[in-house]
Amino acid sequence: MSAKSPLMVKLVSTLGTSPGGVFETFMNLRQGKYEAENPVPVDIKEVYVIRTSDPAVERAFRLLKAIFACCGGREVEVAGIPLAMNDINTRSDYLQFRREVLSRISPGDYVDFTGGRKAMSVAAVLAARQREAHVVTSIIPQADYNEIQSKMKDFKDEDILEGENGRCKVDFCVLTSRNVKTILLE
Amino acid sequence: MSAKSPLMVKLVSTLGTSPGGVFETFMNLRQGKYEAENPVPVDIKEVYVIRTSDPAVERAFRLLKAIFACCGGREVEVAGIPLAMNDINTRSDYLQFRREVLSRISPGDYVDFTGGRKAMSVAAVLAARQREAHVVTSIIPQADYNEIQSKMKDFKDEDILEGENGRCKVDFCVLTSRNVKTILLE
Repeated sequence: MSAKSPLMVKLVSTLGTSPGGVFETFMNLRQGKYEAENPVPVDIKEVYVIRTSDPAVERAFRLLKAIFACCGGREVEVAGIPLAMNDINTRSDYLQFRREVLSRISPGDYVDFTGGRKAMSVAAVLAARQREAHVVTSIIPQADYNEIQSKMKDFKDEDILEGENGRCKVDFCVLTSRNVKTILLE
Repeated sequence: MSAKSPLMVKLVSTLGTSPGGVFETFMNLRQGKYEAENPVPVDIKEVYVIRTSDPAVERAFRLLKAIFACCGGREVEVAGIPLAMNDINTRSDYLQFRREVLSRISPGDYVDFTGGRKAMSVAAVLAARQREAHVVTSIIPQADYNEIQSKMKDFKDEDILEGENGRCKVDFCVLTSRNVKTILLE
């Protein structure tokens, strides 16, 4: 579909208050462990995380960076793309969100709409199709999700800061789940 | 965009466990009370409700029919389109859901993704764009949503059955909110 080198493929993910999904999607794509007609390992070197400026989402992003640094994605560049909004509350928010995602996607990239609000997912997916990018999502059992949401509260700011910088003093990998299923939809 | 008579315009909504959103979207479109470049009243005569076979979703659909019958949409045909799945758990579920929505949409229709799971919303929206249908959503304040979810539990099966048939013995309109904002996205 794309003339680009597979080395250049990005994962572009929306993020809500739960960091795990993005990392699981990344790992499953990289290992070729996803549902598709012909699943092959996807060599992702960069992850773009599109998110609002809500404080809980900001915290989830910092935890996500610590998870990548400490649980098997240290060599991957995780770039945050914070938007100047707390949620999609208006048509103008939606259009801004959609435009921002569109400007970050190249053909053949993987757009993951698992995190964030529904209107964000819709904006991201429509941008993905406009650019001929793939669309993926990950499904996590509700019990695992609830457990992880509860564990998130236990992390101290200073430990997260250390983790983001690759100093893994506490175990961030408890925020991931082995029961996540990733599906290539488009 | 469409050569069809405006009288033929449908609202095609995904439904989860909360019935209110579909009715609010319908009312706001009909009254021209929505965010758009040029909001005009939309004359909707038919509402298609695409839903899974989950029992809680089935109950929400019956409550929705009672709301239409008892709160200002009696002349509208509300048609349920139940799919033989409890959720979108696989790629095949997704493709079936997307195909089903696609087969129900005509150009110029309004597809409302407010209800249901995120993957359903994505399937519905991609089908909508494939058919050149509009995409709308409604935003409800979290407090109103929680209150309505709680009130839903109080309704007895026999009252719902009566309500569906236009015999409004109990007040179904408490399941609607005046604080819902509808946005035309595409």
